[in-house]
Amino acid sequence: MNSGEFRRRGKEMVDFVADYLEGIEGRQVYPDVEPGYLRPLIPTSAPEEPDTFEDILNDVEKIIMPGAASPACTELETVMMDWLGKMLKLPEAFLAGQVGEGGGVIQGSASEATLMALLAARTKVVRRLQAASPGLTQGAIMEKLVAYSSDQAHSSVERAGLIGGVKLKAIPSDGKFAMRASALQEVLEKDKAEGLIPFFLVATLGTTSCCSFDNLLEVGPICNEENMWLHIDAAYAGSSFICPEFRHLLNGVEFADSFNFNPHKWLLVNFDCSAMWVKKRTDLIGAFKLDPLYLKHSHQDSGLITDYRHWQLPLGRRFRSLKMWFVFRMYGVKGLQAYIRKHVQLAREFECLVRQDPRFEICAEVTLGLVCFRLKGSNKLNEDLLERINSAKKIHLVPCHLRDKFVLRFAICSRSVELTHVQRSWEHIRQLTTDLLRAQRD
Amino acid sequence: MNSGEFRRRGKEMVDFVADYLEGIEGRQVYPDVEPGYLRPLIPTSAPEEPDTFEDILNDVEKIIMPGAASPACTELETVMMDWLGKMLKLPEAFLAGQVGEGGGVIQGSASEATLMALLAARTKVVRRLQAASPGLTQGAIMEKLVAYSSDQAHSSVERAGLIGGVKLKAIPSDGKFAMRASALQEVLEKDKAEGLIPFFLVATLGTTSCCSFDNLLEVGPICNEENMWLHIDAAYAGSSFICPEFRHLLNGVEFADSFNFNPHKWLLVNFDCSAMWVKKRTDLIGAFKLDPLYLKHSHQDSGLITDYRHWQLPLGRRFRSLKMWFVFRMYGVKGLQAYIRKHVQLAREFECLVRQDPRFEICAEVTLGLVCFRLKGSNKLNEDLLERINSAKKIHLVPCHLRDKFVLRFAICSRSVELTHVQRSWEHIRQLTTDLLRAQRD
Repeated sequence: MNSGEFRRRGKEMVDFVADYLEGIEGRQVYPDVEPGYLRPLIPTSAPEEPDTFEDILNDVEKIIMPGAASPACTELETVMMDWLGKMLKLPEAFLAGQVGEGGGVIQGSASEATLMALLAARTKVVRRLQAASPGLTQGAIMEKLVAYSSDQAHSSVERAGLIGGVKLKAIPSDGKFAMRASALQEVLEKDKAEGLIPFFLVATLGTTSCCSFDNLLEVGPICNEENMWLHIDAAYAGSSFICPEFRHLLNGVEFADSFNFNPHKWLLVNFDCSAMWVKKRTDLIGAFKLDPLYLKHSHQDSGLITDYRHWQLPLGRRFRSLKMWFVFRMYGVKGLQAYIRKHVQLAREFECLVRQDPRFEICAEVTLGLVCFRLKGSNKLNEDLLERINSAKKIHLVPCHLRDKFVLRFAICSRSVELTHVQRSWEHIRQLTTDLLRAQRD
Repeated sequence: MNSGEFRRRGKEMVDFVADYLEGIEGRQVYPDVEPGYLRPLIPTSAPEEPDTFEDILNDVEKIIMPGAASPACTELETVMMDWLGKMLKLPEAFLAGQVGEGGGVIQGSASEATLMALLAARTKVVRRLQAASPGLTQGAIMEKLVAYSSDQAHSSVERAGLIGGVKLKAIPSDGKFAMRASALQEVLEKDKAEGLIPFFLVATLGTTSCCSFDNLLEVGPICNEENMWLHIDAAYAGSSFICPEFRHLLNGVEFADSFNFNPHKWLLVNFDCSAMWVKKRTDLIGAFKLDPLYLKHSHQDSGLITDYRHWQLPLGRRFRSLKMWFVFRMYGVKGLQAYIRKHVQLAREFECLVRQDPRFEICAEVTLGLVCFRLKGSNKLNEDLLERINSAKKIHLVPCHLRDKFVLRFAICSRSVELTHVQRSWEHIRQLTTDLLRAQRD
C-alpha cells in the first residue's frame, strides 16, 4: 500500500469507527452466532496473491462484526494461527483444525512463550513424578529439575528459569554456534548421575547474536527419548520459513512440544505479535486452569471452544489476529515471501561488500538478514569503530560477543529498506574506518 | 470529543503518520537528546482542565519526536506514572520523581502485576534467608513459603502462586467480604507454628465479585511487622481514588510495597494499560536483571535512566504512555473525576430502583459502580432469571457467588452510559422477572 492509498484507507477507517460509535445503540450487546461460526466463513489457508482492501473491509463487516469481540476475537486467532502454521508447513499436529489436539496462540513476546512452555513442562513433570511417588513434594522435585539451552540462547531463556524457580544450564555450542548432540549428551549424563531431573530444553533457530541454528535433528530425538519438553525459539528466523528455500532450517520441528516465532519481527505484523504453537494444548491449559464463576460461560465444557486465557499469563486479550488477517491478505503469501527474500538478498549484498575489503572479516555464516562482521584486529579497535558509527547517528548497530570476539551486527530490518541504503551504509562504515585507522596511526 | 471532532482529528492523525513515513529518510536514526531530557519539558502533574487537541499534537511534534521511540517511550511512561500517582495522592515513596527510589510502570494486566510482585517478594525472601543461613537451598526455602489473599481475591492471585511455585492460602473474609486482622493473625500463627514462612500478601481494594475492600489499616501493619511483601490489587476500584470523596478507600497504602490498578478498566485509557507502582524499584529490578551485550547501552550504569525491561515479564514494550498522556490532557483531572462520579451516581440510581421492588434484595454495599442483587428466593430462581436476561441479549450480566448465594451483578462500565440506559435495563429486568415468576406459578 503506497502513501496515497494509506491516506485514503486510513481516513475510511476513521469513518468506520465513528459510524460504529454513532450507531452503537442499534447493535445487539451479545452476538447471535454459535461457537465455531467463523471457521467455515473464511478460507482454510492464506491467499497466495493479495486480496484488495475493499474485500478485506467487506469481510470485517460480514464476518467479524456479527461475532463482535467474542467469539470472533478467539476464533479468528485460532484460524489465523492455522493459516500461519500452514505457511510454515508446520506438522499437522501443531494445528487446531476442527478436531486437532494442538493449536496456536498469540503471545506478547517470545519471552512469554518460553516462560509458558517452561511452566507447562514443569507442571507436567511434577505431576508425572508425583503420580509415580505420591509422597514427593513439589519443592523436592523442583529442586532437582534442570532445563537446558545453548550458550547462545537469548537472555529471556535464563529469565524463564529464574521465574520458574528451576536450574537452567547452558550447553556449550560448537564452532558454528550451534547446540549439538554430543555436548548435550555429556551434560545430561552428568546431571542424571548426580540425581538431577532434566525436563525442558529450548532450542534456538536463529540466535540473537549471530543467527546460528541449533541442530534440531540431533537434539530433538534426545529430548523425546529423555521425556524432556522441547521448545523451539525461532523469534527472528521463523518468518523466513514461509519460503521453501529456507524451510529446511525448521526440519526437526516434529520432535518439539512447542514452537514460537515473532511475526512482529520480520513478517510485517505490527508489534506485538508472537506466534506460539503447542502439540497438546491440554499440556498448556492443564498447568494453570482456574475457573471462578465470574469467568464461567455456557460453552466451556462443550469442547467446541478455545479459552485462550488458560494459554497465557494475562487474563485479558487484545484482538491481535485482525492485524495478521489484514497483513496476510494484503500481501498474500507470495508478497510476504518476496519481502523475506529481498532482505536476505540485501544481507548477502552487504556480506559481499564486507568481503571485498581486506580490513574486515565475516564472523558467522550469513543465512538470513543478519551480517556479523568486524575489523581484523583487537576488540578495542572494533569498540572504537562502533562508537564512531553510532555517534555519527546515520545508522545504528548493536554489537555482540562471539566467544571472546567483539563483533558488529548489520541487520536488515526496515520495511522500506533498499539496496541504496545498504550501499550507502557500507560506504559510511568504510569512511569511518579509514578515519579511525588514520587517527590511530597519527 | 464528539463524533465530528473525532472524524476530523482522526483523519489528521492519518496524515500525520503518512507524512512521517514519506519524510522518514530525512530523519536521524538516533536522537540527539540526553537521558532525562523529557521531564523538564512537561508539567509536573496532570492539568485540572482539559487541554486542546491542538496543544497535545504540537507537544508530540516538539517533545516526543526528537526523543523518537527511545528514550521518549521510557521517559514519558515514568512521568505519566508520576502524574497518575499524584492524581491518586499516592505516598511520595511510590513516585519516581528525579531522585526517588520508587516509581511506576505500565504492565499489560493486573495478573502480570501480581505475578511480578510475588516473584520479587520471593527473590527477596530467598536472598534474605540464604544470607542468614548460606546452606539453605532455594528449593528448601520455596517449599516453606506461603502467600496470602482473602477468599474474595481474583483468580489471578491463585494463578500467580501456581506460577511462582509457592503455596497460596485464602484468608476467610468477614461479613462484608473484607479481609480483617483477626482472621489473618489466626492463620499466620498456625502457619508459623508449622514452620512455614509467610512472605507475601495480596490485599484487594474492590473485589471482582462484589467490590468489597480488604481492611488495609488492619492488615498493612501486620505485613510490615511480619516482613511480608504487601501488594495491593485495586484493578477496578483504583480509578475512583482520583476523587477526594473516594480516596479514603486507599488509606493504608503507605504500608504496601507495591500497588496496582487498571486505567483501562475505568479511566478511559484503551486496553491494555495496567498501572503498577513499587516503593523500592531495586526490589523489582533485582529479581530478574540480566544484561547480555546486545541489550547493553552507554547509559545503563549512570543511574539516570530506567530500564523497564527489568520491571516486567516481556522484553519488548509498546509506547502505551502516549495514550495516558492524551487522555489525561483531553479530559483534565476534573473531567476524569466527573466521569467516575457519573458512574457511581448511576449505580446508586440502580440500587434505589432495586430497593423499591420488594421481590429483590441488595447483596453487598454499593460503593462504586457495581450493584450486586438477586431475587429473594432460591439460587435456581436467580439462575433462571440470569438465563432469561442474557438470552434476551439486550443487556449482559455476569454473576458471582457470595458465600452460598448466587448473585447477579449490574456493572456501570460503558463510556457512553446514561441514566436512560440504566432505567431501561431495570424495566427490562423487572419485566423478565414478572414473566419468570408467572411461568413458575403456571
